[in-house]
Amino acid sequence: MKLYETPRTPNPRRVHIFMAEKNIDIPRVAVNLATGEHKGDAFRKVTAVQRVPALELDDGTVIAESVAICRYLEELHPEPALFGRDARERALVEMWSRHVEFYLAQPIFAAFRHINPAMASMEQPQITEWGEANKLKAVDFMRVLDQELATRAFIAGDAFSIADITAICVVDFGKVAKITVPDDLANFNRWRVEVSARPSASAT
Amino acid sequence: MKLYETPRTPNPRRVHIFMAEKNIDIPRVAVNLATGEHKGDAFRKVTAVQRVPALELDDGTVIAESVAICRYLEELHPEPALFGRDARERALVEMWSRHVEFYLAQPIFAAFRHINPAMASMEQPQITEWGEANKLKAVDFMRVLDQELATRAFIAGDAFSIADITAICVVDFGKVAKITVPDDLANFNRWRVEVSARPSASAT
Repeated sequence: MKLYETPRTPNPRRVHIFMAEKNIDIPRVAVNLATGEHKGDAFRKVTAVQRVPALELDDGTVIAESVAICRYLEELHPEPALFGRDARERALVEMWSRHVEFYLAQPIFAAFRHINPAMASMEQPQITEWGEANKLKAVDFMRVLDQELATRAFIAGDAFSIADITAICVVDFGKVAKITVPDDLANFNRWRVEVSARPSASAT
Repeated sequence: MKLYETPRTPNPRRVHIFMAEKNIDIPRVAVNLATGEHKGDAFRKVTAVQRVPALELDDGTVIAESVAICRYLEELHPEPALFGRDARERALVEMWSRHVEFYLAQPIFAAFRHINPAMASMEQPQITEWGEANKLKAVDFMRVLDQELATRAFIAGDAFSIADITAICVVDFGKVAKITVPDDLANFNRWRVEVSARPSASAT
């Protein structure tokens, strides 16, 4: 296997944290997004989707999406389970993962793309008003998570899961879009400190 | 188990098609979105997330998200497999499901919410320009799928999967947002006709 990825970007970071939690290592190939290498002919041969991260299997199959890569690695290395330990838990992890994706990750990415002047050529039309609205949506969902985290250790239950990995990656990325976690969200901030203190959080 | 749902809306329809493919029936409770029943106290007791569809298990656990419900049902009723039949296929189904979600479903929903006058009170700020941009994004991704469908029967491979279910539900819903599939997308239109002819497509 080979992992095509770009250091210090949120989607590859999800895979890095996932691999660190499972103590997996995979040979890596850096793809330079800044020079548009992911849009070039060489990488197009790897995946028509032209996105990182992308995991190339030994039979040539390419899985070009971060959560799909994590699911594949979960099947090869089931322990510790990061998608849930039984059918009920797997359903709750999926529910919270998708809620985090739609109501936290998407608004944070939208805020970044619609407010950051450096993104003007990539996000057309770039609409500042929409970016600002998304900042508010992201913080609204942090409040939902704050209430949930009053009753349990992690986003989807008592065990650390892919939902926590997605959430910490996008909340940390939110700094770039100047989205900060309100101080009064005590449970959410407690969660953030705990997840950030795990060795996997600094995996690169 | 009990399934809370709203007839003729795209997310519950995903679950209906999924159940029909597996020949599953579950007692249903209709939730009226038009009167805001999903925001009321009674439904809040079912799920704090206040969204349909929601599957209540016999132990009281509530799975309030369409794909999470489908994954749970897949574990109870593995055949026919709709999330893939082995690790590699499951990874490809997940990759394509997420691509369909991000690059087809999200743009179609955004177009609907930002263009339809009836949605003005629910989507604030409602930005027509952003809605129109999302129509184009949705059609762009139909072109990507058209190329993929030149080489295989279904979106994620040779077998019908949850990726096809999500795609047909949102493409059909696109009519409401006046998003039509271009006639020149021969492979995509062939796929649409075939998927629409399955008995599950008319499940309600």
